Amino acid sequence: MSTVSLLSEIADVGRDQRRGGYSRHVFDAAEGELRAWFVEQAQRRGLDVETDRNGNLWGWWGTPGPKALVTGSHLDSVPGGGAFDGPLGVASALAAVETLRAQGFQPAKPLAVVVFAEEEGGRFGMPCLGSRLLTGSFDADRARALRDPDGVTLAQAAARAGLDPRRLGRDDVALSRIGTFLELHVEQGRGLIDLGSPVAVGSTVIAHGRWRFSFRGQGNHAGATLMTDRHDPMLPAASLVAAARRIASGVAGARATVGRIVPRPGGTNVIASAVDVWLDARVPGDEHTRALVEEITAAARHAAAEEGCEVTVTEESYSGAMAFDPGLTATMSGVLGAPPRLATGAGHDAAILAEHVPAGMLYVRNPAGISHAPEEFAEDGDVEQGTEALANVLKALSK
Amino acid sequence: MSTVSLLSEIADVGRDQRRGGYSRHVFDAAEGELRAWFVEQAQRRGLDVETDRNGNLWGWWGTPGPKALVTGSHLDSVPGGGAFDGPLGVASALAAVETLRAQGFQPAKPLAVVVFAEEEGGRFGMPCLGSRLLTGSFDADRARALRDPDGVTLAQAAARAGLDPRRLGRDDVALSRIGTFLELHVEQGRGLIDLGSPVAVGSTVIAHGRWRFSFRGQGNHAGATLMTDRHDPMLPAASLVAAARRIASGVAGARATVGRIVPRPGGTNVIASAVDVWLDARVPGDEHTRALVEEITAAARHAAAEEGCEVTVTEESYSGAMAFDPGLTATMSGVLGAPPRLATGAGHDAAILAEHVPAGMLYVRNPAGISHAPEEFAEDGDVEQGTEALANVLKALSK
Repeated sequence: MSTVSLLSEIADVGRDQRRGGYSRHVFDAAEGELRAWFVEQAQRRGLDVETDRNGNLWGWWGTPGPKALVTGSHLDSVPGGGAFDGPLGVASALAAVETLRAQGFQPAKPLAVVVFAEEEGGRFGMPCLGSRLLTGSFDADRARALRDPDGVTLAQAAARAGLDPRRLGRDDVALSRIGTFLELHVEQGRGLIDLGSPVAVGSTVIAHGRWRFSFRGQGNHAGATLMTDRHDPMLPAASLVAAARRIASGVAGARATVGRIVPRPGGTNVIASAVDVWLDARVPGDEHTRALVEEITAAARHAAAEEGCEVTVTEESYSGAMAFDPGLTATMSGVLGAPPRLATGAGHDAAILAEHVPAGMLYVRNPAGISHAPEEFAEDGDVEQGTEALANVLKALSK
Repeated sequence: MSTVSLLSEIADVGRDQRRGGYSRHVFDAAEGELRAWFVEQAQRRGLDVETDRNGNLWGWWGTPGPKALVTGSHLDSVPGGGAFDGPLGVASALAAVETLRAQGFQPAKPLAVVVFAEEEGGRFGMPCLGSRLLTGSFDADRARALRDPDGVTLAQAAARAGLDPRRLGRDDVALSRIGTFLELHVEQGRGLIDLGSPVAVGSTVIAHGRWRFSFRGQGNHAGATLMTDRHDPMLPAASLVAAARRIASGVAGARATVGRIVPRPGGTNVIASAVDVWLDARVPGDEHTRALVEEITAAARHAAAEEGCEVTVTEESYSGAMAFDPGLTATMSGVLGAPPRLATGAGHDAAILAEHVPAGMLYVRNPAGISHAPEEFAEDGDVEQGTEALANVLKALSK
């Protein structure tokens, strides 16, 4: 079955009627349905499926590890996300396994297809949570206490999904099995559009993080409070949005985004008492990212002080700049006839694993350059070329 | 039982643990508990209670109407509101009835205590919904289609509360019974703090309305989309917040507030595809209010165009400036020894009814000047002086 056919099987799972696109969040009903679908598809292809301590799914061809060749991605989405970010890497991995089996290929080392949990951080706010927990790069106690927008903790959600929340955290057994990790992913910007290639090999992931700005002022009546008597946290929150755009536009390669803002109490006729604003910032180079966030923070603090408001800034996640394994990317380039190499502003589980094992990525062209939105797209032909590339790389690496 | 004691009975109903203060929305569990409490308290004071077609509660002393003297307020709150806005007018009306009964007073005309539904618009977005429906100033078909944040229509919520949603709308029977309407309310600004008086008589309500600005751009990936490739609706949304402050600050007596903003999809690592922003604007004088909103709208349209976004503006409600009945306010002043007269920037059911019957208001001093927030307050002594003032005015008007 082709990758396109596999994706069409899950095209109706987790559609978001209100936002458009898909909302598939870790351990929710839609994501659970996708997990069940993965288990069935993996078993059909002769893979032995297991769930690790952190809720990541593994489909094994051969005895699990060590030095296994692992490929896969994730099945969760951002709220109102597209059909490809995550599922393309999982479906193409399943299709590649099927291709290799059909060719009678017998890998010389164990091979696994993996589905990482909560890659988007769409429910608990921490991106790449499954791979971060597995590798120990995110503290298990902090993870268990993370809450979703309804106040449910990760520990509670994991328990409801059949995991033992006490066993969340660094998983040396799972980690020791991975020899090499490969992730195929839809390209998320305009990087491949003008290069005339359906596929690229990943070179680097730029530094990126999330910061929560909590502004506090004085809640009050919107009609009875004179403009001069206000300490309205919505004002510095708006200044932060403007400052992020202004400052990032002046830094080469920088991206700064406010996509989430929550005023409290959030009534139309109420001056907010507090506003939480999340800043997503990414710049090639760690120091440049730190400098960008510091400059935006200074602007936010200044705006808060001017309004008589307070602000606290919390770093919710940070991932330094990283380059994928040079030997692995050279091998991939060789197998694939030297396709373009692409740096990305998007974070991926492959970048988390790259701190521990050789890891690499393949990108498939996105003709709109749009991602994390319903318009995210990849042409059928490009998807199948990407799958073929993945199969060829897997074959070369598992000889 | 004093007004203070009555309020203490409901001090635990509908507390909002997340926002602080109270969230009591029409037809929800907390508001339902308050309705049951009102019915019991009204019956204890010998009032015959009925619910009208629009969900407003009436407690009658004597045969209902015509030319009845009606007093009351509402029991719903804004999200995370205070303890006094609404309940003070209901509790003081009950206490005043008790005082009059204890004095052996026999009103020469019917007297009623009323609880209006959804005064704050906290659930369905339309303030003074109960009084607007009763008087026919808001269309019943539009009302039935209003949705709460969970997508429940007013028709559905009303049906669940035991009302016939087909019978929502102008209620000539209920309206014809009202001879005069009086509302006692906690003052919502700093108006009484420096005047040395616990009580004021209402003079005017300034024009006020709510406008929804829906900005639409292009949702995309926060990391993979260069700053130059963006059409981010959060930018013009932030400009609207800044413009509202800047423009209103230059207009005498103007108040403009953004307390509610909802980006879609609302993910941290997602450039929003759309942002809804609600503007609450109020200026003494209709033309000035219209001019203020036009100027803010022009700024929002300009900011949207600069970002390559679209914006649509919807007027969700508008109430023109109004003066309370001169004869009634003169009578009230006479009975109360000429307390201060106060204009207000807050809307009230009394202002809706004033278009149909003589209506007036009494305000009770708010020592913090804060309302629509947990810090909203009135001193016990001021509350009881307000109640005494209400009882004296009721006595004078029902002789």
